[in-house]
Amino acid sequence: MSKVAVIMGSTSDLPVMQDAIDILKEFHIEVDVDIVSAHRTPEKLFDFGKNAHNNGYSVIIAGAGGAAHLPGMVASLSPLPVIGVPVKSSNSIDGWDSVLSILQMPGGVPVATVALNGAKNAGILAAQIIGSSNSEILGRIEAYKQGLKDKVIKGAEEVKKK
Amino acid sequence: MSKVAVIMGSTSDLPVMQDAIDILKEFHIEVDVDIVSAHRTPEKLFDFGKNAHNNGYSVIIAGAGGAAHLPGMVASLSPLPVIGVPVKSSNSIDGWDSVLSILQMPGGVPVATVALNGAKNAGILAAQIIGSSNSEILGRIEAYKQGLKDKVIKGAEEVKKK
Amino acid sequence: MSKVAVIMGSTSDLPVMQDAIDILKEFHIEVDVDIVSAHRTPEKLFDFGKNAHNNGYSVIIAGAGGAAHLPGMVASLSPLPVIGVPVKSSNSIDGWDSVLSILQMPGGVPVATVALNGAKNAGILAAQIIGSSNSEILGRIEAYKQGLKDKVIKGAEEVKKK
Amino acid sequence: MSKVAVIMGSTSDLPVMQDAIDILKEFHIEVDVDIVSAHRTPEKLFDFGKNAHNNGYSVIIAGAGGAAHLPGMVASLSPLPVIGVPVKSSNSIDGWDSVLSILQMPGGVPVATVALNGAKNAGILAAQIIGSSNSEILGRIEAYKQGLKDKVIKGAEEVKKK
Amino acid sequence: MSKVAVIMGSTSDLPVMQDAIDILKEFHIEVDVDIVSAHRTPEKLFDFGKNAHNNGYSVIIAGAGGAAHLPGMVASLSPLPVIGVPVKSSNSIDGWDSVLSILQMPGGVPVATVALNGAKNAGILAAQIIGSSNSEILGRIEAYKQGLKDKVIKGAEEVKKK
Amino acid sequence: MSKVAVIMGSTSDLPVMQDAIDILKEFHIEVDVDIVSAHRTPEKLFDFGKNAHNNGYSVIIAGAGGAAHLPGMVASLSPLPVIGVPVKSSNSIDGWDSVLSILQMPGGVPVATVALNGAKNAGILAAQIIGSSNSEILGRIEAYKQGLKDKVIKGAEEVKKK
Amino acid sequence: MSKVAVIMGSTSDLPVMQDAIDILKEFHIEVDVDIVSAHRTPEKLFDFGKNAHNNGYSVIIAGAGGAAHLPGMVASLSPLPVIGVPVKSSNSIDGWDSVLSILQMPGGVPVATVALNGAKNAGILAAQIIGSSNSEILGRIEAYKQGLKDKVIKGAEEVKKK
Amino acid sequence: MSKVAVIMGSTSDLPVMQDAIDILKEFHIEVDVDIVSAHRTPEKLFDFGKNAHNNGYSVIIAGAGGAAHLPGMVASLSPLPVIGVPVKSSNSIDGWDSVLSILQMPGGVPVATVALNGAKNAGILAAQIIGSSNSEILGRIEAYKQGLKDKVIKGAEEVKKK
Repeated sequence: MSKVAVIMGSTSDLPVMQDAIDILKEFHIEVDVDIVSAHRTPEKLFDFGKNAHNNGYSVIIAGAGGAAHLPGMVASLSPLPVIGVPVKSSNSIDGWDSVLSILQMPGGVPVATVALNGAKNAGILAAQIIGSSNSEILGRIEAYKQGLKDKVIKGAEEVKKK
Repeated sequence: MSKVAVIMGSTSDLPVMQDAIDILKEFHIEVDVDIVSAHRTPEKLFDFGKNAHNNGYSVIIAGAGGAAHLPGMVASLSPLPVIGVPVKSSNSIDGWDSVLSILQMPGGVPVATVALNGAKNAGILAAQIIGSSNSEILGRIEAYKQGLKDKVIKGAEEVKKK
Repeated sequence: MSKVAVIMGSTSDLPVMQDAIDILKEFHIEVDVDIVSAHRTPEKLFDFGKNAHNNGYSVIIAGAGGAAHLPGMVASLSPLPVIGVPVKSSNSIDGWDSVLSILQMPGGVPVATVALNGAKNAGILAAQIIGSSNSEILGRIEAYKQGLKDKVIKGAEEVKKK
Repeated sequence: MSKVAVIMGSTSDLPVMQDAIDILKEFHIEVDVDIVSAHRTPEKLFDFGKNAHNNGYSVIIAGAGGAAHLPGMVASLSPLPVIGVPVKSSNSIDGWDSVLSILQMPGGVPVATVALNGAKNAGILAAQIIGSSNSEILGRIEAYKQGLKDKVIKGAEEVKKK
Repeated sequence: MSKVAVIMGSTSDLPVMQDAIDILKEFHIEVDVDIVSAHRTPEKLFDFGKNAHNNGYSVIIAGAGGAAHLPGMVASLSPLPVIGVPVKSSNSIDGWDSVLSILQMPGGVPVATVALNGAKNAGILAAQIIGSSNSEILGRIEAYKQGLKDKVIKGAEEVKKK
Repeated sequence: MSKVAVIMGSTSDLPVMQDAIDILKEFHIEVDVDIVSAHRTPEKLFDFGKNAHNNGYSVIIAGAGGAAHLPGMVASLSPLPVIGVPVKSSNSIDGWDSVLSILQMPGGVPVATVALNGAKNAGILAAQIIGSSNSEILGRIEAYKQGLKDKVIKGAEEVKKK
Repeated sequence: MSKVAVIMGSTSDLPVMQDAIDILKEFHIEVDVDIVSAHRTPEKLFDFGKNAHNNGYSVIIAGAGGAAHLPGMVASLSPLPVIGVPVKSSNSIDGWDSVLSILQMPGGVPVATVALNGAKNAGILAAQIIGSSNSEILGRIEAYKQGLKDKVIKGAEEVKKK
Repeated sequence: MSKVAVIMGSTSDLPVMQDAIDILKEFHIEVDVDIVSAHRTPEKLFDFGKNAHNNGYSVIIAGAGGAAHLPGMVASLSPLPVIGVPVKSSNSIDGWDSVLSILQMPGGVPVATVALNGAKNAGILAAQIIGSSNSEILGRIEAYKQGLKDKVIKGAEEVKKK
């Protein structure tokens, strides 16, 4: 069964990245979580990146802030699809640094980038990637989307009542 | 067998988006190409988005420029993973408009965004998504990555000779 | 009699969008309010957009944040003038994403964009659009502008007294 | 019959603003064109702004570049809806100056802003404003939108043939 | 004797603009303060701008936020040097709108722009302009600069003691 | 009689800065031109800045590109009003570096900043500063402004003829 | 023995710059601290810059905010390596002004720029510069890097336990 | 004797990076040049980074464009001072991506960043780092700075002659 790795550059990224973990669990997809710092544990990064596809992962979600090199370096090392989450960290320049250093990868090494602090969407995207060859997961995504719809319809009714 | 849809908002996006088509063919992945304008052919957008997963597609690549709504609207309509390519069109404000209107999707509806004009990477990412459950395609990606490596090594040797 | 539709992508946009509703009521213009999410309720968006001009609306005001596709998609579907309000939502990159994804529409499909969080001005603009063919409403706008003037003059007097 | 005024800050804005004039003529809407510089002919600006609604205009389109004050100052002086076109002039900082000095109007005085160099859309928006109370013009806008659709469909067919 | 006019678009700008008034008083330069809104009191703007040089003013300081047209419009109407203060107002996009709409004036009509919220420097600049033809005021500026120096030197000593 | 110093960081700034020289000559104001590099000739900068007010200058115009320190450092050294011209040099990041490093001076040391490459306006501003205590120069500025007006009126007539 | 000078433009920069002082002390490298304002104490700047290499310093760390000229001016005056710390001061435009006015130095006069508020990294970089010719300091940097690694590994274990 | 490594992510960076090589040769400092791609040759990056300080290098200069991870990753792996050169590559968003992904390194792992395309300054900075413990090289830097000065003085004389 498909498994997703959720890694991040620092424990301080966990409050943001937790959204990815939670939504994957909601989709009943197995998740492993780890701290892998491109700049402070480069050997761990190498080990992780080189072996992820042999360790049972189908998709990697990597979150980092500032000059965020973790998603791109994992994408460099692994043949798996890598989803990058730009995290708005404390000394970030309004998040632009994280966004651009994850998004603007050179030709040959893509990172599937989601919105600033968009860890929830990273989790959903990982589920969609698994769902693209797994009709059960695809069904859960369709149900999830139906749920979003129902919630908006209900909200609309409440607004109209006022 | 997995199939990828490459759609774009305008025929003027084709020179950029051709890179996605070419690299997918290099990976021997079937590709269909279409022009679907969110703003000028909304009905076609709806038909396409609603039915893509029933029409044999595993991944959708959508490119658009300016206020680029095509990738996000397809992601709204389809349970499949959608890869967005921000295209730097003629009246774009340096590409920022395309990047932000594709990347900054709200919680619940992700678009896997690649670099500005990064259609080649969109194609590779689509192959990686298919490869995440298909070891043959995964092998081709590993070979492709080896090819990138060899080319850099060769370039390095030539630079050193000078 | 002319009627304005005020729609928004999420109930969380209501505190900003309320300014449009309030000022339209001040001008004695009929307003309908609804939540229409381009990304979560695309079918509702389609129904709304396709039928607005047959449902008695003269102008549509649409507010949304982040990758804000609601105003542009409604403009795609309706022949009516659409006023877009960029909302500075919580994970927005300082509002730039909402502004650019509403403003930078391609040739053929305009959105009349107002300032970030400028829902009040959206309401006034809707009144001006109605007023352009309705001398009574035009008169109310002239009176409103006179009121703004009087308030500044009074404020100036108080500043000078100090 | 409704008439539109197309004004601009300098004759150098004419190549951009011509798109507004052309599309309005295509819709068979009467257009007057004038050069009104907020910074070099403030008296003319005053006369124009104060009297536009008495001179038979329903909508004003104002284009300017750099620190673009013309659209906002006309909106200050006239009760009519004012459409602002940010022009990317030669010494502009990538168009950001024109966009922000037109878009970010204070509460009370809206300018309906279109995309950078988006004069064509300004013309269509003016037609939509007139069309909101004129079913003949509204019909022409529906036909125009149908034409955009047909052109995309045709382009899509040609792309598919290749 | 030279006199400076300090005007601003709204009473809400006064807390920022007060710095200009205070420093001018410190230099014993006469100051008049007024609220003049380009967008809400255009007639007052015209009267003020047209007559400032005949009303005994040597320099005009104008502060405004958002799409800040007051400094540029006064510069359009008056032959006097106009100093513009970009004010970071509540719905400003981080101040960029005020800065660019004051700074980027077209050839022929300069505004002497100071830093965002830099009203104090606007006051000093006004004093320097007067001081350029008045040796007494020039002397006060030299003394003021000496005071700044002394304060830094003293601060440095305290830092070194720690 | 009042004299203006026009200095710049590099001979490569001369094509931009020439506009300041030309317009000052048009106003019959004496101009001295010099190359003073803050980063390559700091001693010359010091000599110039310390003595400018004793060498007969009333106003200093300083142009520089990139990390543009010349205007601010001259303002640090001289009690005279300093006008800064941000020059868009070859490796500038679209001019933002020059604009921000000239505009954003700390409290106590203003630089009167004009638009990017706005050397002409720097010259006019210098004339206005001199004119604020010299009615003859003030008269020339009024005549110059009348000339701008006449040119726009004439341009408008030609546009209307078409 | 090598000594580092840590200077800053204002005592208000000390809370940020303290990180540089602390980390250098952790590396047992001698530090001198001083306030040197480019804009308020230009003579002190000159004395400091001209003599730093004769006063026993090997590296200079200079921090400043807004239009930050201190690092570049010291680099202009001294042959030593100068590390610039952009400080996000109160009226800064989100730190962009400090970053660009330190980073974008012209050819010939480099400043080694670190991240916004990155004083800690400035201290480490100074240690690395000394370490490049001093194997004892180099060893301390290797030990420091090992410490960073250990901390991440430990943090990762705690995250995994949850 | 001290040696500098100049590495870059792609042969396409060589035209920019050549300036670093040339200026180091002018200072008679030994240089080795290599292509090391963080994203395409991660193993080579690891080997290079881990061993640089044992291979006789004192300083590393690393240039890269777009999401530029090379300088930061080398800094992660090596205890040596690393100078980063943001290269404005073809699909870069005006260079902002390279600048921010090199500059905004997290606490603990500095990169000495120079201006966009500032390879010449990277070479000078490397020389200054070596010169900080080598009086002969320091002398050459002083001579180089004198040369810059002489060139400006000469340029100033020519400008004054005109």
